[in-house]
Amino acid sequence: MNDTLKTLLNHRSIRKFKDEPLSQEHITSIIKSAQMASTSSFIQAYTIIGVTDKAIKSQLAHLSGPQPYVEQNGHFFVFCADLYRHTIAGTMEKTAVTTSLESTEKFMVAVIDASLAAQNATIAAESMGYGICYIGGLRNDMKKVSELLSLPDYVIPLFGLAVGIPDTQTDQKPRLPMESIYYENTYPKDTDTIYSGLESYNDTITNYYESRTQGERKDRWTEQISHMLSKPKRTDMKDVVQQKGFLRD
Amino acid sequence: MNDTLKTLLNHRSIRKFKDEPLSQEHITSIIKSAQMASTSSFIQAYTIIGVTDKAIKSQLAHLSGPQPYVEQNGHFFVFCADLYRHTIAGTMEKTAVTTSLESTEKFMVAVIDASLAAQNATIAAESMGYGICYIGGLRNDMKKVSELLSLPDYVIPLFGLAVGIPDTQTDQKPRLPMESIYYENTYPKDTDTIYSGLESYNDTITNYYESRTQGERKDRWTEQISHMLSKPKRTDMKDVVQQKGFLRD
Repeated sequence: MNDTLKTLLNHRSIRKFKDEPLSQEHITSIIKSAQMASTSSFIQAYTIIGVTDKAIKSQLAHLSGPQPYVEQNGHFFVFCADLYRHTIAGTMEKTAVTTSLESTEKFMVAVIDASLAAQNATIAAESMGYGICYIGGLRNDMKKVSELLSLPDYVIPLFGLAVGIPDTQTDQKPRLPMESIYYENTYPKDTDTIYSGLESYNDTITNYYESRTQGERKDRWTEQISHMLSKPKRTDMKDVVQQKGFLRD
Repeated sequence: MNDTLKTLLNHRSIRKFKDEPLSQEHITSIIKSAQMASTSSFIQAYTIIGVTDKAIKSQLAHLSGPQPYVEQNGHFFVFCADLYRHTIAGTMEKTAVTTSLESTEKFMVAVIDASLAAQNATIAAESMGYGICYIGGLRNDMKKVSELLSLPDYVIPLFGLAVGIPDTQTDQKPRLPMESIYYENTYPKDTDTIYSGLESYNDTITNYYESRTQGERKDRWTEQISHMLSKPKRTDMKDVVQQKGFLRD
């Protein structure tokens, strides 16, 4: 198995970092790697903000949870969907581009572009020995995060990425069985296949928690997920996203 | 520089593959790598369909362009946002989950989850010597693609990923200058910074085309992008996505 596969397969989220900032050289390698990800029709519809200002970091940590590792890490990146520079391209070329930019299709393009870039950043960081944690918690208050980072219209913060030297050991949580996530040619037509996959996965997850907690915790995956989904979260998302210019059509 | 960074920085899209199918072992490595990507609150909101059926591949190739490399490759994956198995989890746990699943927030979660997994699949494939090409063209007719793959409600095809042994040499297209995509602490408040970055990038892109075409092609990036954006594409996207159960609130 090559080193890259080892890095990919060894991933786990890290939520405690040593107090050691990334060198500029490593930050540059991470960004350059992010930029080499594929991008839809070369649109490059994202921006990355590196947050070093302590006051801003502290506010982001608070808004996200609070999650202390948003504040304490080697470097904190915010990945934004960005179609703002494309409005400027339109102005430079005297071409009307707004209708296209405000479409659901272009919203998806920007979210996908930013995510592909972020995962390249993640793999670059992990290959250099860093740990990472994605911070979806920035979406708890996308409007406030946008203000803190002075994001103009057509730019929204999607998630953060905390990077740093791990100061903790974490176990790898088992994923869904491959048979439950990968199908050939067709989605299974009978739901029995899906039920039995989830039941088997529930056993795996229960064993995982039992062995880590001396039998105290016995969660099932379907239980955790249903519980989480029973309470709709971030219900202002469509409004905020539309106010910023995305997803209007 | 480590091998993983070399793989990341060496990426280019490949649009011509040798007629040599991937081994089952390599397909498994790619899927397992995809699964190890981070996932929002462990929701794992995606499904990957491997398309080997020649008739389906041929139809997907036609719908996407036509793009012959959708048909001729070592393996063709379709990455789907999937919240369907979460409806089943809800049924298993007798918990109402639909309102949450139909939210803009969960649509974003599923698109991000699927994209992070896809980029891991990409890096896994490239680390083993394969080339890849993302196929956003599947969104030209998301409804038809969904039918071809028997995708139920709460599952939509986001893009394809063609993988195979490269049968062509391609140049690497220069990305936006790092200064135009990465900012510290704040988005630039004066637009001059953005204009001058795009102007400098236009020069880079013009030189790139000039040197490849003996001076015949002289495109600017802002020109290409504005031209592309002047014609809204896939204008049925919101309707189709909503019909499938996503993005209703």
